[in-house]
Amino acid sequence: MKALRFVNNQLELSEIPRPDNESEALVQVVASGICNTDLEIVRGYAGFEGTIGHEFVGVVEEAAGAPELKGKRVVGEINAGCGHCALCLAGDARHCPERTVLGIVGRDGCHAEFLRLPARNLLAVPDSVSDAQAVFTEPLAAAYGITEQVEVRPETRVGVIGDGKLGILCALSLGLKSKNVSLIGKHPAKLAIAEKGDVEGILLENAGALKGVFDVVVEASGSESGFATALDLLRPRGKLVLKSTFHGKPEWEAWRVVVDEITIVGSRCGRFAPALDILEKRLVDVEALIDEEFSLSDGVRAMEQAGKKGAMKMLLRMDAA
Amino acid sequence: MKALRFVNNQLELSEIPRPDNESEALVQVVASGICNTDLEIVRGYAGFEGTIGHEFVGVVEEAAGAPELKGKRVVGEINAGCGHCALCLAGDARHCPERTVLGIVGRDGCHAEFLRLPARNLLAVPDSVSDAQAVFTEPLAAAYGITEQVEVRPETRVGVIGDGKLGILCALSLGLKSKNVSLIGKHPAKLAIAEKGDVEGILLENAGALKGVFDVVVEASGSESGFATALDLLRPRGKLVLKSTFHGKPEWEAWRVVVDEITIVGSRCGRFAPALDILEKRLVDVEALIDEEFSLSDGVRAMEQAGKKGAMKMLLRMDAA
Repeated sequence: MKALRFVNNQLELSEIPRPDNESEALVQVVASGICNTDLEIVRGYAGFEGTIGHEFVGVVEEAAGAPELKGKRVVGEINAGCGHCALCLAGDARHCPERTVLGIVGRDGCHAEFLRLPARNLLAVPDSVSDAQAVFTEPLAAAYGITEQVEVRPETRVGVIGDGKLGILCALSLGLKSKNVSLIGKHPAKLAIAEKGDVEGILLENAGALKGVFDVVVEASGSESGFATALDLLRPRGKLVLKSTFHGKPEWEAWRVVVDEITIVGSRCGRFAPALDILEKRLVDVEALIDEEFSLSDGVRAMEQAGKKGAMKMLLRMDAA
Repeated sequence: MKALRFVNNQLELSEIPRPDNESEALVQVVASGICNTDLEIVRGYAGFEGTIGHEFVGVVEEAAGAPELKGKRVVGEINAGCGHCALCLAGDARHCPERTVLGIVGRDGCHAEFLRLPARNLLAVPDSVSDAQAVFTEPLAAAYGITEQVEVRPETRVGVIGDGKLGILCALSLGLKSKNVSLIGKHPAKLAIAEKGDVEGILLENAGALKGVFDVVVEASGSESGFATALDLLRPRGKLVLKSTFHGKPEWEAWRVVVDEITIVGSRCGRFAPALDILEKRLVDVEALIDEEFSLSDGVRAMEQAGKKGAMKMLLRMDAA
């Protein structure tokens, strides 16, 4: 099968055997999405080698003990836990210390014709959700997951820093909970995408007037300065949600966090079921984030395109491969 | 009156008039405690000039509209809010943006024969609490305040980093909530103070074996490396309480906070009433933390002593002045 792989510091489309671990379900991938984490892997930040990609929709070809899934269109939770540690037994495979992560840690990913995941990771996609929409389940789950970590009420004043894909998804997701969400970014055209939802767009250059007013600020810009900006915008006892997995070591004035009794919340993944529900109800227009579609065969070019400044979501279609 | 003052980068005992703002209560100070914040001010970190000190017990001489306090032995909340902003009206003067703070921000402190504070800041001290014990109300409130920010149950595994005064008070306070508190430090003699309470002492050199095991870690060492150590000791989704107001800019690997979904909680002050209750019930032996007592006249020497490596609490007695 074809697979987009990062091996020996080289990204290339390879021909490799289908994955063969029969204890896991085999999924024929229909479409996948390129995430910034894919770009970070290819920049060598994550120490991962293999098939990249973790946002996908596909059809179950072998169901590995879950016959009800056979032939179903599915998305899949990307963390595969050991299944027997205390965290896994408590239902939190996302933090299992032995976990593998689809296309990120110790497990081939989804920019390929086929992938394997434990059957328990798979969720059927409602018929009314298109393939392109379903590809957003994972990033939407990660964005909406913030609302399970931090209390967001209708009156909560929320700022999201960064008008890239992740920031827009966070702003639109949080806009489902609060009527006071602002997206702060540099690009009027991107802010406009969020403004079609129930979100106010604010240019970064105008954010200085908003010092100390937000109850919750989400740092989704992936830049080191974003962290300092987030601290500036928070009220005392406010909450800073750290969403981007950038690999810098931001300088910060720890005393400000203490004096203002700020809480910083690291946030990575979210549950898929609420995200599928949002997609089914059409509460967030994820398709507005798609820049361009490519066939899997053009995966290297799609990654180049995704890496350009200001790029939004690139989709790969496997049937065109 | 005599007052220990930091002016023009110089610490000295001065003779100055009694404070004269008659809208506030006048307190004749009986005893005060030297805190690391006093040392930081004298090192020029805080931009404060005036009489230093914020831990005290005293007797109300003028009650400023609260006649029931006249003649009472009191301690005092150190943050004085504006009284009319949204935070003050919600009872949170501690975060009022216009607040002054006794001996720290815009208000003369307690290493003096007299001080003034709004009458609403004062709390009567139960007779059974000695003067020396009452001086610990403020730092004990700050330590016990952690339990109002982070859930600590009997089974919660808590680590406190730093076996100085603050760390020991944090460990002993958290030991009132959890039966699984460890104090991690470099000094067997200091760890032994905490071990008299319901706390396990662990030498820092042996802490490496405890990576990833704690639900809550309190950074109270005031050192930059303490922050990294705290991150190492936390389990995924654990909580790091940042207690020391050190003025460095710690380097940290932000991605770890995101991937492990760590929460960092800045913690500064706590409410006085629960601390007085702890002192009255003798639940924490604060006197074990006292190194030496000085008269106010010897304040400069007391500060030198407090600044020595490994020093514990220095008390000033005003009646001996």
